Amino acid sequence: MMNWHEIDRQAKEWVKEAGEKIKASFDKSLSIQTKSNPNDLVTNIDREVEEYFFDNIAQTFPDHHILGEEGSGHELNTLDGIVWIIDPIDGTMNFVHQKRNFCISVGVYENGIGKIGLIYDVVHNELYHAIKGNGAYMNDMRLPKLPDVKLEESILAINATWVTENKRIDPSVLTPLVKRVRGTRSFGSAALEFAYVATKRLDGYITMRLAPWDIAAGVVIVDEVGGITTTLDGNPIDLLNKSSILVANPSIHAKIVNDYIKGKYSS
Amino acid sequence: MMNWHEIDRQAKEWVKEAGEKIKASFDKSLSIQTKSNPNDLVTNIDREVEEYFFDNIAQTFPDHHILGEEGSGHELNTLDGIVWIIDPIDGTMNFVHQKRNFCISVGVYENGIGKIGLIYDVVHNELYHAIKGNGAYMNDMRLPKLPDVKLEESILAINATWVTENKRIDPSVLTPLVKRVRGTRSFGSAALEFAYVATKRLDGYITMRLAPWDIAAGVVIVDEVGGITTTLDGNPIDLLNKSSILVANPSIHAKIVNDYIKGKYSS
Repeated sequence: MMNWHEIDRQAKEWVKEAGEKIKASFDKSLSIQTKSNPNDLVTNIDREVEEYFFDNIAQTFPDHHILGEEGSGHELNTLDGIVWIIDPIDGTMNFVHQKRNFCISVGVYENGIGKIGLIYDVVHNELYHAIKGNGAYMNDMRLPKLPDVKLEESILAINATWVTENKRIDPSVLTPLVKRVRGTRSFGSAALEFAYVATKRLDGYITMRLAPWDIAAGVVIVDEVGGITTTLDGNPIDLLNKSSILVANPSIHAKIVNDYIKGKYSS
Repeated sequence: MMNWHEIDRQAKEWVKEAGEKIKASFDKSLSIQTKSNPNDLVTNIDREVEEYFFDNIAQTFPDHHILGEEGSGHELNTLDGIVWIIDPIDGTMNFVHQKRNFCISVGVYENGIGKIGLIYDVVHNELYHAIKGNGAYMNDMRLPKLPDVKLEESILAINATWVTENKRIDPSVLTPLVKRVRGTRSFGSAALEFAYVATKRLDGYITMRLAPWDIAAGVVIVDEVGGITTTLDGNPIDLLNKSSILVANPSIHAKIVNDYIKGKYSS
């Protein structure tokens, strides 16, 4: 029987320590590189923080697997066993440009089931965390179950990109939804946007292409307050591949899929 | 000769005190009403805070005028004399839904010239402030002049609303710009978005309809670091009326107007 509370305690210690490393880096100059495209940034800090997690996990839990954004983890084609899914800095563009609105995201899964989710907003010292079945928290504050909201009174995170011409979705699909809700926002960190859905600062978040490390922690935390995460058209998430994402308050999730997406987009 | 440093000291004291009132309100229940449309919210706190400013200004500076969002100020058709332009809570929707990402905005103008700008992010205790000609600050930290950026490496605040069908602008106008920049964001508080441009967290901010109280403080602060504020098509702002806004780093402002807006939109 796995001691999830002990793994959680250890993971939190590492996340806090990694946060200190990131804060210390603010005084040093960054080495910024681009990855697949000019806007997909990675810094030496992303890599150093991922290696810090990799080294600690490999030493403490040698039979666990690691899936990480910056490539120091394992090549996985299955979620069998225990898998740590890590984004050392989620929202690297914000990290580079703003030195805020980024976070560390760590999810721990067992045979594909999310057991632990940790999202750490380093600058604001806000740790969003959950162990499956034990509720979700921001620091020491228990997060309440999400209350019902009306779609027309909800706030949705959606980037302007997805309602302009793009490779993933016809921009006209999401337009009626943008017009229907009370307001839209875009913070530029998927994990933080999951945390904001969990804390009711947002009622939903839509984006067209996320990797497992962007969402692994968020799914666990949102699930503990009753939120629902699927692809945009309502199918289960595959945590080994990239996909579109709709994470939302349970009272509006099905309505968004059925009234706005079905028949217009399929993943 | 007006003692702007003394007026600034007094204004800061009121802003901090108003922030305490807002924080204290978090424990009480809000009374939320809508104004011109269902998404234009106002709370009892907006009104109480504006009255607090009005009462103090009227008592301390009886010959000053006041222009405020919630109607406790004067009806002005000129900016002659000294005018306080106040938004007691800029980002009321965020205040209601998120209890963060809102601020108090206070600008003090003399004969139409911005002399003092104060933007207070209450929750994060970050006061952005400037006295004309004396530089801009966040708390005690002097903000440097904005360095040059390339448009393709810049981050722009623009809400998804303005690239979907709306009353103010053809959604196709801003699409090429959204595709050109490195990324877009939307925080939902105009005054904070001005503060983020002043601190280089954003390189520009575009929105289609702002009132004087949304921008009065931000214009002063951004100006002190070299940022430029105009209507979207590059004309001077009229602080007695609503208008479109383009506030940006000086190295990209003219390029946005000339290459993306001119000939496609006029205010």
